[in-house]
Amino acid sequence: MIGHTRRGFIVALALLALGPAASGAWAQADPLPSWNDGNAKSAILAFVGRVTQQGGSDFVPVEERIATFDNDGTLWTEQPMYVQAAFILDRAKQMVKEHPELAQQPVFKAIVDGDTAALASLGEQGLADLMIATHSGMDTETFDKAVSDWLATARHPRFQRPYTDLVYQPMVELLAYLRANGFKTFIVSGGGIEFVRPWTEKAYGIPPEQVIGSSGKTRYRLDGDTPVIEKLPEVDFVDDGPGKPVGINRFIGRRPVFAAGNSDGDLQMLQWTTLNTGPRFALIVHHTDAEREYAYDRQSLVGKLDKALDEAPRRGWLVVDMKNDWRTIYKP
Amino acid sequence: MIGHTRRGFIVALALLALGPAASGAWAQADPLPSWNDGNAKSAILAFVGRVTQQGGSDFVPVEERIATFDNDGTLWTEQPMYVQAAFILDRAKQMVKEHPELAQQPVFKAIVDGDTAALASLGEQGLADLMIATHSGMDTETFDKAVSDWLATARHPRFQRPYTDLVYQPMVELLAYLRANGFKTFIVSGGGIEFVRPWTEKAYGIPPEQVIGSSGKTRYRLDGDTPVIEKLPEVDFVDDGPGKPVGINRFIGRRPVFAAGNSDGDLQMLQWTTLNTGPRFALIVHHTDAEREYAYDRQSLVGKLDKALDEAPRRGWLVVDMKNDWRTIYKP
Repeated sequence: MIGHTRRGFIVALALLALGPAASGAWAQADPLPSWNDGNAKSAILAFVGRVTQQGGSDFVPVEERIATFDNDGTLWTEQPMYVQAAFILDRAKQMVKEHPELAQQPVFKAIVDGDTAALASLGEQGLADLMIATHSGMDTETFDKAVSDWLATARHPRFQRPYTDLVYQPMVELLAYLRANGFKTFIVSGGGIEFVRPWTEKAYGIPPEQVIGSSGKTRYRLDGDTPVIEKLPEVDFVDDGPGKPVGINRFIGRRPVFAAGNSDGDLQMLQWTTLNTGPRFALIVHHTDAEREYAYDRQSLVGKLDKALDEAPRRGWLVVDMKNDWRTIYKP
Repeated sequence: MIGHTRRGFIVALALLALGPAASGAWAQADPLPSWNDGNAKSAILAFVGRVTQQGGSDFVPVEERIATFDNDGTLWTEQPMYVQAAFILDRAKQMVKEHPELAQQPVFKAIVDGDTAALASLGEQGLADLMIATHSGMDTETFDKAVSDWLATARHPRFQRPYTDLVYQPMVELLAYLRANGFKTFIVSGGGIEFVRPWTEKAYGIPPEQVIGSSGKTRYRLDGDTPVIEKLPEVDFVDDGPGKPVGINRFIGRRPVFAAGNSDGDLQMLQWTTLNTGPRFALIVHHTDAEREYAYDRQSLVGKLDKALDEAPRRGWLVVDMKNDWRTIYKP
C-alpha cells in the first residue's frame, strides 16, 4: 500500500508539474490579447483550430490557407475620410504651390479654398480626374517616395497621430495569428495599390507582393540606361466590390479560406470566399465605438455598409462589434 | 617521440575522418548536380554566396530576394511550338467537333484541315481571335480543369512524353537552390496566366500566387448562390517584352535581384532587374543542343532572340550554353 500511495503521489506531482505545459489551453500565451473573451474571439480560435487539425475532416493544407483582408475600415481607420483622400488633398495643394496656374481649374480651386460644397458638386468624374492628376506624371519610385514622405509627417485630424499608428491592434494580432498557423495573408484594398504597398510590411507584416489594390496604367521605358516605369493618367483596374474577386483571381489564383471586410465594397469578396465547399470564414468589422474610434453603423461618409450587414446572418459571417469585442483599438 | 608520432597519427586519422564533413565544399551535397562544373555554375554559386553573406557588402535582406523566371524556353521546352499553342489547336478541334458550324470560320477550317499556310495568312489578328475564342465563354474553374485534363493526356510530338516532363532539370534545381537561400521565386510568362498556374506548383514548386502572365478580362457574378468568375472575350494584359517589368511592378511591387529568360521577350525584364544599384544577376538560356533538345541560336520559330543576346556581354548577363553547361536536360 505504501508503494502504491507513493507511486500515486509521484504521479500527482508529475501531473501538477506538467499540467500547464501539457494542456493545450495553458501551453501558449493568448494569441489575441486585444480581443475580449466572447463569441467573436471563440469563433476565430475554433475555426483556426479546425482547419489546422491534421487528420480532421476540416483540415486545409497549408498551401491553400489564403486569407484576404480589406484595408480601409478593416485594418485601419477610414474616418473622417479615406487616408488616401487626405493624401490627395495635400498633394493637390502642393501641386498648386509648385504650379499656380493649376488654381484656375475648378477642382484645384475648390481644394485650395477648402470649399467642400464646390468639391462635392464636381461629382465622381471630377474626383476621378483629381485622383489621376495627383497619381500620374511621374515614375513609380518617385510616387512611392511621395507616399512614404507624406505618411512620415501627416497627422490624423482627431487623434493627432501618424495614420500608420491608427492600425487596429486586434487585427494586427489576427494577421500574425493566422500566419503562425500557416496562412498567407493578403490585403485586397479598394485603395491604390501603390499607396498601400510602401508601409504594409512594417504595419501588418504583409509584403508588397501580397497587396492587391486599384491601379492606373503604367509604361516601361529605358531613359538612357535607366529603366523607369511611368505612371500614366489612365485607370487600369478598380479593386472594389465585384472587382475584389476579380483581383483575387488575377493576383492569387486561388479562392481564400478566410476573408475580412467592413463595407459593401467587400460584399463580393466575402461571397467568393464563403460560398464554396469546405470550411470557410468571413468577418465584418462593425464600427460601433464612437468614443475610441467612430460609430457609423450602416451608412458612413465613405460608403454604404448595408448589404454586407444584411447578408451576414444568412451567410454565417461573423460581425465583430468593435466596442464590445475589442479590448484595445490602437497600440498606446 | 613515440608519443608524438602516435598523436600525429591520431590527428591525421581524425582529419581524414572529419575532412569531408568539416570542409565547406564537402559538407553539403552539390545543389546543382545537373549543371556541369564551369563558369556558368560557378557564377551562380558565387552570386548566391555573396548576397546571402551576413555582414558582407553585397548582402541582400531576405525580403528583397526576389527572383523572376520566364517560362517558355527558360523553364520548359518551347519547340516546335509553344505548349499553349498546341493546347489552342487541340481545343479548337474539340470545339469544332462539338459545334460543327464553327468549321465555316476560316481560322477553324484551317486548323481542322491542318492548313498551316492558311493559318499563317490570317495574321496576328486571326491568331488573337483564335486565342480569345478558345479561352473565353466559360468560368475560370472550368478553364483550369480543361488545362489540367489536356496536360494529363497530350504528348510532345518529338519526345512522346507529357509536356510537364519536359521541364529543364537544371532550372528546377536552380529554383530550389534559390529558395533554399531565402529567395522567393516567381514565373513571369508571356503565356496566359491561367494556362500556367494549374501545374507550376508540382513542376517547379512555384504556387499560383507567384505566377504572373498574360490575361483576358474577367467578370464576377453570382449565379443563384454560386459565385463565378467568367472569362470575357477581351485581352486585358500582355505580359511580354516591356509588359514584363510592368507586370512585375503590378504583381510584386519590388524589383527583382535575379532574373532568367531566353528571348527578346525577356529583354526588358533583364534590364529592369540589373540596371539598378546593388548586386544583381541575370541569365539567358541559350538553346544550343539539337540532339538533346533544340538548337535555335538567334531566330526561333516562335520569336526573336537577337537583342537580348547582343546586350548580354555589355550588361554582364550570363549566357548559359545548354549543350555544354547542362549535364542533364530532362529528368529521365
